[in-house]
Amino acid sequence: MSTLPRTSRAAVLTQYNQPLEIRELEVPPLEPGAILVKVEAATVCGSDVHVFHGRFTQIAQLPLVPGHEIVGRIVQLGEGREKDAADQPLRVGDRIVWAYAWCGRCYYCTIARQPTLCPNAKMYGYGPCDVPPYLIGGFSEYAYVRPACHVVKTPEELDARVAASGTCALRTVVFAFERLGGLRVQESVLILGCGPVGLYALAMALASGAAKTIVMGAPRKRLALAEQWGAHHTIDIEEIPDASERKKMVLDLTEGRGPDVVIECAGPSAAFKDGLEIVRRGGRYVVIGQTDPTPISIVPSMINLRSIDIIGVASASVPHFYKAMQFLQNNQRRFSFLDLISNTYRLEEANIALQSMAQLQEIKPAILPS
Amino acid sequence: MSTLPRTSRAAVLTQYNQPLEIRELEVPPLEPGAILVKVEAATVCGSDVHVFHGRFTQIAQLPLVPGHEIVGRIVQLGEGREKDAADQPLRVGDRIVWAYAWCGRCYYCTIARQPTLCPNAKMYGYGPCDVPPYLIGGFSEYAYVRPACHVVKTPEELDARVAASGTCALRTVVFAFERLGGLRVQESVLILGCGPVGLYALAMALASGAAKTIVMGAPRKRLALAEQWGAHHTIDIEEIPDASERKKMVLDLTEGRGPDVVIECAGPSAAFKDGLEIVRRGGRYVVIGQTDPTPISIVPSMINLRSIDIIGVASASVPHFYKAMQFLQNNQRRFSFLDLISNTYRLEEANIALQSMAQLQEIKPAILPS
Amino acid sequence: MSTLPRTSRAAVLTQYNQPLEIRELEVPPLEPGAILVKVEAATVCGSDVHVFHGRFTQIAQLPLVPGHEIVGRIVQLGEGREKDAADQPLRVGDRIVWAYAWCGRCYYCTIARQPTLCPNAKMYGYGPCDVPPYLIGGFSEYAYVRPACHVVKTPEELDARVAASGTCALRTVVFAFERLGGLRVQESVLILGCGPVGLYALAMALASGAAKTIVMGAPRKRLALAEQWGAHHTIDIEEIPDASERKKMVLDLTEGRGPDVVIECAGPSAAFKDGLEIVRRGGRYVVIGQTDPTPISIVPSMINLRSIDIIGVASASVPHFYKAMQFLQNNQRRFSFLDLISNTYRLEEANIALQSMAQLQEIKPAILPS
Amino acid sequence: MSTLPRTSRAAVLTQYNQPLEIRELEVPPLEPGAILVKVEAATVCGSDVHVFHGRFTQIAQLPLVPGHEIVGRIVQLGEGREKDAADQPLRVGDRIVWAYAWCGRCYYCTIARQPTLCPNAKMYGYGPCDVPPYLIGGFSEYAYVRPACHVVKTPEELDARVAASGTCALRTVVFAFERLGGLRVQESVLILGCGPVGLYALAMALASGAAKTIVMGAPRKRLALAEQWGAHHTIDIEEIPDASERKKMVLDLTEGRGPDVVIECAGPSAAFKDGLEIVRRGGRYVVIGQTDPTPISIVPSMINLRSIDIIGVASASVPHFYKAMQFLQNNQRRFSFLDLISNTYRLEEANIALQSMAQLQEIKPAILPS
Repeated sequence: MSTLPRTSRAAVLTQYNQPLEIRELEVPPLEPGAILVKVEAATVCGSDVHVFHGRFTQIAQLPLVPGHEIVGRIVQLGEGREKDAADQPLRVGDRIVWAYAWCGRCYYCTIARQPTLCPNAKMYGYGPCDVPPYLIGGFSEYAYVRPACHVVKTPEELDARVAASGTCALRTVVFAFERLGGLRVQESVLILGCGPVGLYALAMALASGAAKTIVMGAPRKRLALAEQWGAHHTIDIEEIPDASERKKMVLDLTEGRGPDVVIECAGPSAAFKDGLEIVRRGGRYVVIGQTDPTPISIVPSMINLRSIDIIGVASASVPHFYKAMQFLQNNQRRFSFLDLISNTYRLEEANIALQSMAQLQEIKPAILPS
Repeated sequence: MSTLPRTSRAAVLTQYNQPLEIRELEVPPLEPGAILVKVEAATVCGSDVHVFHGRFTQIAQLPLVPGHEIVGRIVQLGEGREKDAADQPLRVGDRIVWAYAWCGRCYYCTIARQPTLCPNAKMYGYGPCDVPPYLIGGFSEYAYVRPACHVVKTPEELDARVAASGTCALRTVVFAFERLGGLRVQESVLILGCGPVGLYALAMALASGAAKTIVMGAPRKRLALAEQWGAHHTIDIEEIPDASERKKMVLDLTEGRGPDVVIECAGPSAAFKDGLEIVRRGGRYVVIGQTDPTPISIVPSMINLRSIDIIGVASASVPHFYKAMQFLQNNQRRFSFLDLISNTYRLEEANIALQSMAQLQEIKPAILPS
Repeated sequence: MSTLPRTSRAAVLTQYNQPLEIRELEVPPLEPGAILVKVEAATVCGSDVHVFHGRFTQIAQLPLVPGHEIVGRIVQLGEGREKDAADQPLRVGDRIVWAYAWCGRCYYCTIARQPTLCPNAKMYGYGPCDVPPYLIGGFSEYAYVRPACHVVKTPEELDARVAASGTCALRTVVFAFERLGGLRVQESVLILGCGPVGLYALAMALASGAAKTIVMGAPRKRLALAEQWGAHHTIDIEEIPDASERKKMVLDLTEGRGPDVVIECAGPSAAFKDGLEIVRRGGRYVVIGQTDPTPISIVPSMINLRSIDIIGVASASVPHFYKAMQFLQNNQRRFSFLDLISNTYRLEEANIALQSMAQLQEIKPAILPS
Repeated sequence: MSTLPRTSRAAVLTQYNQPLEIRELEVPPLEPGAILVKVEAATVCGSDVHVFHGRFTQIAQLPLVPGHEIVGRIVQLGEGREKDAADQPLRVGDRIVWAYAWCGRCYYCTIARQPTLCPNAKMYGYGPCDVPPYLIGGFSEYAYVRPACHVVKTPEELDARVAASGTCALRTVVFAFERLGGLRVQESVLILGCGPVGLYALAMALASGAAKTIVMGAPRKRLALAEQWGAHHTIDIEEIPDASERKKMVLDLTEGRGPDVVIECAGPSAAFKDGLEIVRRGGRYVVIGQTDPTPISIVPSMINLRSIDIIGVASASVPHFYKAMQFLQNNQRRFSFLDLISNTYRLEEANIALQSMAQLQEIKPAILPS
């Protein structure tokens, strides 16, 4: 291990809405339990675009290296870090993904057993990169896995970009299915939104035995991928801009009752309302995608008089990373996950990737930093 | 059985917003499986006031006898009706309550196993009383229990008015606790609203082992009853009209996190929003009380980013009637249920009862028709 | 409807262990709500063999027509029977399956909402056939669907024998997955037994997204079908008669921990014990198959010290019939369900079918009565 | 903090079945995150007797200080240990209890989220006390709380002996109620065994709103305490030694069906079988108490044909410690928890306490080491 890197090339955001700059960041010394990885692939999330636009200033700290969807190979293992979360031995060269660093000690981590709500979580992709351990963003040659991050070995059979994409959208979908209590036998499922979260929700619904899946979203190209993966029906919101017409279409596809389960993966507040009105009476409504701060008018009695369950889901913890990697490996012949990766960029092209994402030209762009 | 009644005196609504008229209605011949009961007590529900005001014209049919909270004694048993839902023998003179007549054959009754969503349910208190079997409202000497109504024998130890009050507010609370999955050990519970639903929710929360209960509502007199029943804290919304101040009070009482469980039993749309904002991150929010058609603005991302479960509950089915009667019997020494009954009226005073209820002068008025 | 049949040819068991006799049974007049069907196919269950051998004398009544796995077409609809359980209209000629007649009024039907435990259930295939309505067994040209039986329309695309086979083994598996709470994402599943219940459990596990499925049983031919359907591993108990060796094989396939879920569909008491010892600590163990009255020694502390859940499942109710038919239709391209049907017999060959089943020469034989 | 202790007097087991010896053990230096506490009270568990008798040699290591039910006051806080699991600040002098040290990194801690199954757990009361950190048993003046142990501040209002007793029996009962999914409204509960686990299970059942509680066990004195706490019925197994007679008594108390829930807290294998046969069809059976290695004969088809759920529970994790302390505090006026403490001993009398426990002369003896 004589040839450890001293620096890591990284794409750094120094000012909101300004192009990322390629810089050489210091590689910090390894604390016990920490891991240095060489980033194989980082994929770009909608949140990276929000960070870029300065919408997440309450958690982001400049300068920062964006990117929290990361897969890498172990370059060096800190003292005492010998196994992954599934008790598999870790060795230099192994491919891994890792979860955010929850504190493991607070009320939410211990008593509530809801670590995704830990107020002390240390995330990736939100900076700052000018204080140790510097390398906490994916758009970088190397990344530093904190001692508190649980890691999961990642199958070699997976394309690195697919593995990276599973660390945010898919692991959240895994948690959503857990919070939902899974699908019951032969349920119908409506998925609102056909970005990576929506598409992974579709794959999970199909793999879980949904009797019928309907994907509502845009653009057509993503819906085409949904159809290729096995969606029974798709509804293009650009073609059918009227919500009540779309509702009627869904009712017609679900014996007039509406779907048993609706999974919102769309984003806009209006999508929340659509789902609330379409889900069948007595059905379950999973809300994953909402990030829109715009208020929207609803009539709350729809919830009780229609006897609906609404389940809010955000992020995920290490079991969901593990299951996400298993899911990708075990289902890659059924679903062409690589088709999610709309473009592949070099580190120097990180700006283009972000811009292209911001302009909705992408499903999921990937950056290969090396 | 030679002296069966031929007619039943009843308070009849012939025009919305006009006084009920006392009429003699025909006692119909008994179908197999039906039951004729002499009404011991009927209590008045907020829905009766809505019916009176013509707000439920899509389900109500004039002329009608109001009242769906009823306890009575068996006068005659239709052929083949030998036992109650708990396999107890039924005999003339027995005191019973009964559930709405669900069809037992539709998708919601059979496959979804959600009979409260049965579109073919035949209810009580919504008329019409000019076609057989006429006697399907509580403000009447006699009532006709349809063959499809499951019945539950009712303990003799209970005051008839208390038993009647349990057939709507309490049985819904029983179902709400079932849908909630019960309280976990030592949870904190905020109850929004202190009408009969809120007060029964309080009693159920205390009897289920809540570590802390907070009741928010008005007027003071009802809150005083909540305190007498054991509420740890009450917040008077007339004294503290500012929602954000009330929220702060609740946070101060719940280690700054908010209650584990919020149960909305209030009614106005604004109450729904209050609960959504107060429940702790990762908590559960049961919505029972909403009847307000007024839209309200919310930011849906509060649901997923705060990882909340929202559970809508309406009505209940026969197991909940059974459990409600057991609950009243087994907890009447702990909670002075009779204090819920704010006034007792004769059948001829049904108008006064309704008016008094409409003017929020009552918790739960009772009518003793005989 | 002028040409309704007066009699139905049926295979009748008049004495235990004696050959069935072909007789002409009277077709009874139709009560309101009842249905007369022409039997398309009846499949033979292990229970039919037990009835034949006189092991179920506490519920069976001679003379009887065996067969409770039945699909038929409507010949005549009793008054008032207009829709199936899923609200689909019923017409003469429609293909249906139906559930046992639960009373719908007892504690288990109403309050516990566990109709499979109804003590008043009227079953099919257990006789007697010499009192009305006579036609309550599947080995017959016609069958009489009681008014209390919920019915489910059955897809035309299905082979009648497959549909019939779904009415016992598969609908029980559907209920088992409900009781289990479904599979969680990427669980490993061991299935004990590879008769029809085991094979349908395999199909359901695969369709529900199991990461790994292992089927343990015999003979080889059935295991070959399991492999064809997608079982990841099979273990032949005839080849590996030593339970501890089999346990070791399973541990080797499940990271040394044992499977997350074990589903017992085997029958002998020893199989129960095997599952108890193999399931991983903290895992779930579904017991469906036990019919063996032989006691077996276990050490109960294995249950708590290993923190296991054991879930006993028997029979099923109408939602499970409905889901079973949906499952067959939606998965028939993935699984060659018809390969379950080991032989097809005419009504006159019913004895051969029973004997062949008794001698373990069959997976699932079918009888086509017409 | 100049006057930290250098040694701790402790009762040490040096040979199985030989009297404990009072020795002075070294107080180790504090690792970061560790805590030194002065033991206020240690209560004696049945497991301590098993350790004494050499039945747990696979986990116990001589010499050892027995005692894992401990409450103490903070003498010194290791660096970085600032808050308890509920985010309350920790200061010298605070009273705390703590959970076993799970590794927090293995499959069971992270992916299965079942830390009670962690194979790397470091327990208290099982030694060895001749290697650092020495002070890992309760029969000692001081105890060393490992950095990995989650701690919970303990209410000052509680008697120290009661608090100590809550750290094993009660916290396991809390976990059992969690695994059970809580009681549903108005369920009947049979508790097998009336040692500390059984008595705490009774208190929890009552506090959770059980409609009826039956405690079956011996001796009479413990049953008297159960009655004092509110048990509706008790059955003395010394008076009624015949299991079938006891079963009949329970059926008579539960409408002939058997209890909805049975909680086994007894120990002998025969008790497991009793519960299996008594629980109502479709009921739930929680097994906590089994430690008996004696096999027992059962007929497994009782599980599926009677549609029972069996839930095995062992130990508990930090949320359950927290809830246990809350439960004691919030219910101490309702239940005289101190009556569980059958005798109080000085450290020098630890042998007497153990012997007295071994001879079933105690419910729960306490040792006050200072």
